[in-house]
Amino acid sequence: MRRFIASESVTEGHPDKVCDRISDAILDECLKQDKNARVACETVTSTGLVLVVGEISTTAYAPVEQIVRQTIKEIGYDDPNIGFDYSNVAVLTSLIEQSPDIAQGVNSAQEFKSTNDKYDQIGAGDQGIIFGYADNETEEYLPVSINYAHKLAQRLTEVRKNKVLDYLRPDGKTQVTVEYDDDKLVRIDNIVISAQHTEDVSLEQIREDIINEVIKKVIDPSLIDENTKIYVNPTGKFVIGGPKGDSGLTGRKIIVDTYGGYSKSGGGAFSGKDPTKVDRSAAYMARYAAKNMVAAGLAEKLEIGISYAIGVAHPLSIYVDSFGTGKYEDERLLEIVKENFDFRPQAIIDNLDLLRPIYKNTSSYGHFGRNNPEFTWEALDKVEELKKY
Amino acid sequence: MRRFIASESVTEGHPDKVCDRISDAILDECLKQDKNARVACETVTSTGLVLVVGEISTTAYAPVEQIVRQTIKEIGYDDPNIGFDYSNVAVLTSLIEQSPDIAQGVNSAQEFKSTNDKYDQIGAGDQGIIFGYADNETEEYLPVSINYAHKLAQRLTEVRKNKVLDYLRPDGKTQVTVEYDDDKLVRIDNIVISAQHTEDVSLEQIREDIINEVIKKVIDPSLIDENTKIYVNPTGKFVIGGPKGDSGLTGRKIIVDTYGGYSKSGGGAFSGKDPTKVDRSAAYMARYAAKNMVAAGLAEKLEIGISYAIGVAHPLSIYVDSFGTGKYEDERLLEIVKENFDFRPQAIIDNLDLLRPIYKNTSSYGHFGRNNPEFTWEALDKVEELKKY
Ligand SMILES: C[S@@+](CC[C@H](N)C(=O)[O-])C[C@H]1O[C@@H](n2cnc3c(N)ncnc32)[C@H](O)[C@@H]1O
Ligand SMILES: C[S@@+](CC[C@H](N)C(=O)[O-])C[C@H]1O[C@@H](n2cnc3c(N)ncnc32)[C@H](O)[C@@H]1O
Repeated sequence: MRRFIASESVTEGHPDKVCDRISDAILDECLKQDKNARVACETVTSTGLVLVVGEISTTAYAPVEQIVRQTIKEIGYDDPNIGFDYSNVAVLTSLIEQSPDIAQGVNSAQEFKSTNDKYDQIGAGDQGIIFGYADNETEEYLPVSINYAHKLAQRLTEVRKNKVLDYLRPDGKTQVTVEYDDDKLVRIDNIVISAQHTEDVSLEQIREDIINEVIKKVIDPSLIDENTKIYVNPTGKFVIGGPKGDSGLTGRKIIVDTYGGYSKSGGGAFSGKDPTKVDRSAAYMARYAAKNMVAAGLAEKLEIGISYAIGVAHPLSIYVDSFGTGKYEDERLLEIVKENFDFRPQAIIDNLDLLRPIYKNTSSYGHFGRNNPEFTWEALDKVEELKKY
Repeated sequence: MRRFIASESVTEGHPDKVCDRISDAILDECLKQDKNARVACETVTSTGLVLVVGEISTTAYAPVEQIVRQTIKEIGYDDPNIGFDYSNVAVLTSLIEQSPDIAQGVNSAQEFKSTNDKYDQIGAGDQGIIFGYADNETEEYLPVSINYAHKLAQRLTEVRKNKVLDYLRPDGKTQVTVEYDDDKLVRIDNIVISAQHTEDVSLEQIREDIINEVIKKVIDPSLIDENTKIYVNPTGKFVIGGPKGDSGLTGRKIIVDTYGGYSKSGGGAFSGKDPTKVDRSAAYMARYAAKNMVAAGLAEKLEIGISYAIGVAHPLSIYVDSFGTGKYEDERLLEIVKENFDFRPQAIIDNLDLLRPIYKNTSSYGHFGRNNPEFTWEALDKVEELKKY
């Protein structure tokens, strides 16, 4: 049976990603000064405008306006001709403290009253359903399609920043559809790339350059055949871009951030959230668990699903699905997960060392599948222990 | 094998849902006056503030400020003591026209140049991956957990509005975890409800009332046993709520809007988007196809996945997965879907009659599984035809 699996990614200049990055840069600044900061920071951008809202309780002083401008400059919106630029954008802020009603549930979880266990102290910062996933399709333990979509987006930014294609502008999107025969990867069926550019370059030129400098530099040529369809800037023109072509909001690329439609999503966003928010920290832990389980040979692919109640430390439920690829029954795999990974928020924070200013770099090209050393949830340091099963 | 599946929902007073509703109310006003309106409308709300941004090209005049206040009033934020109210909130607007570079791709798709077929005219408004799902677990052709989560959220709003529980305020969340034995629904493992309330009522009172007036009125008692855990307001207090407790953004409840983590998501949001945006229209069509296929007995559960390129009318790929429950192989089911459902944007718009002001009501309690007659994508009018297979 032939199956097609598609995934997309976007560059750091995509308007939603500009927002994710700003939210995470503000989070980082708070954590740098105050490990106990509670941060829920949302950003919105539209033509000429950035608005930062949310709930932040901290002793830190985060100079929001400067962080916003600096982040936009780093992304590359540094010229008024692009239609959005760091020095001319309006920056509005409306931040308040975390609701004391929420804080009381997070600061002292239901269980803590009776157990006094340090890992029972922090209650989940919200209810929610969270998934983690890994498979052995790629070195990154990610499905091929999302992996390539990210690599293409990264490469788009690289050739822009190192001026190999000096007419590129920061905004861009990629999409890769792979064909499977049952579970066997056969070929790439199609690739879509849209890249913002200056006015003075032809569509033919862009097409040729993107194929040579981006697609060919990233994709294994054996996966491309004469029927692979390649769409470069299919609208014909992409001069207007960034927040001038499309408004952006934090948390609107949650499938790009995770598994590209290959695994489920509980709906929670990551950027701008400190790790008492289980939407983020439990998703990191679930990825960590799934990746180590797969790397230890306990399954070829593994999805872990967890649910929480606000103000309660322990997950309400955990399940695993190995899609029939497990070395043991799923019931047994679940036991192994539970024995080796602790999903209470404080345990996650400690075990993955999450109270560090590491989040800005997570915000684009995937929270998973990149081996930056500070991305502790990608470490394979549980594999040895898990091999004993 | 025991499995736990959790899903959540929120009331119309949840801050993200306030935004979804405002975005869809503005979309409706545009479509009422101008069927050709192109609308991408995003809303953000925070303490005392609503900001509406996006890209709208239309001949309609939509009085944004009035629509915002009216929508907030209908939801029930009508008293300054709630911390957010329609008459005192600041309303900011920053709307521009759709990018002409995007419009050229949407107005005249790649295929149209050669075919001149009317259904080839409109190009997809964006690239993207879209899923549709249905199963026969409930009358609504939705999984039990998301179905109950929505019914609980609806009931919460009902007892607030009809004053059965007159201390309730508009914000609220629900979550239901069901237990399966393999694929058989066994029981409800836990229910989480957080409901905003006035200061003068005790947690015990709220707990008792929510159990009696909400949970017992909604959930089949045979699914509840003595081990079913019920959490009502687990933080202990939920007086501060709405945009004062948590900022809200359009498109941040995409899993609540769809299948509650039971099916995959491509990541696209619905509210505020006119149907040339395939994120919305193709998701409606995919649901319509999946639901009719299941109702015709062609599968017990069916997921349909579709991908698009911006400015191209035809989907780049379609797949179906019946999880082994199909009457035929998935390959054959896919053929049946392709023979009976046309996923080009203009075909979807015509066949589901989507250029009507019907969107405000979609914005809460699920875009799927509700039988409002204007929700054409829930109609079972293809079942007879599909039964012939
Ligand atoms: C197509 S826009 C979404 C629709 C938009 N809000 C509207 O009203 O038309 C989504 C993303 O596509 C990319 N994009 C913007 N302009 C484009 C163009 N002319 N061609 C291709 N992609 C474009 C940008 O990355 C943008 O954030
Ligand atoms: C807990 S808040 C998200 C976290 C928040 N941004 C923060 O900084 O703490 C998410 C949702 O929970 C609900 N909520 C707000 N206050 C609550 C409370 N005191 N107890 C339970 N739920 C609450 C509201 O529906 C709100 O939109």
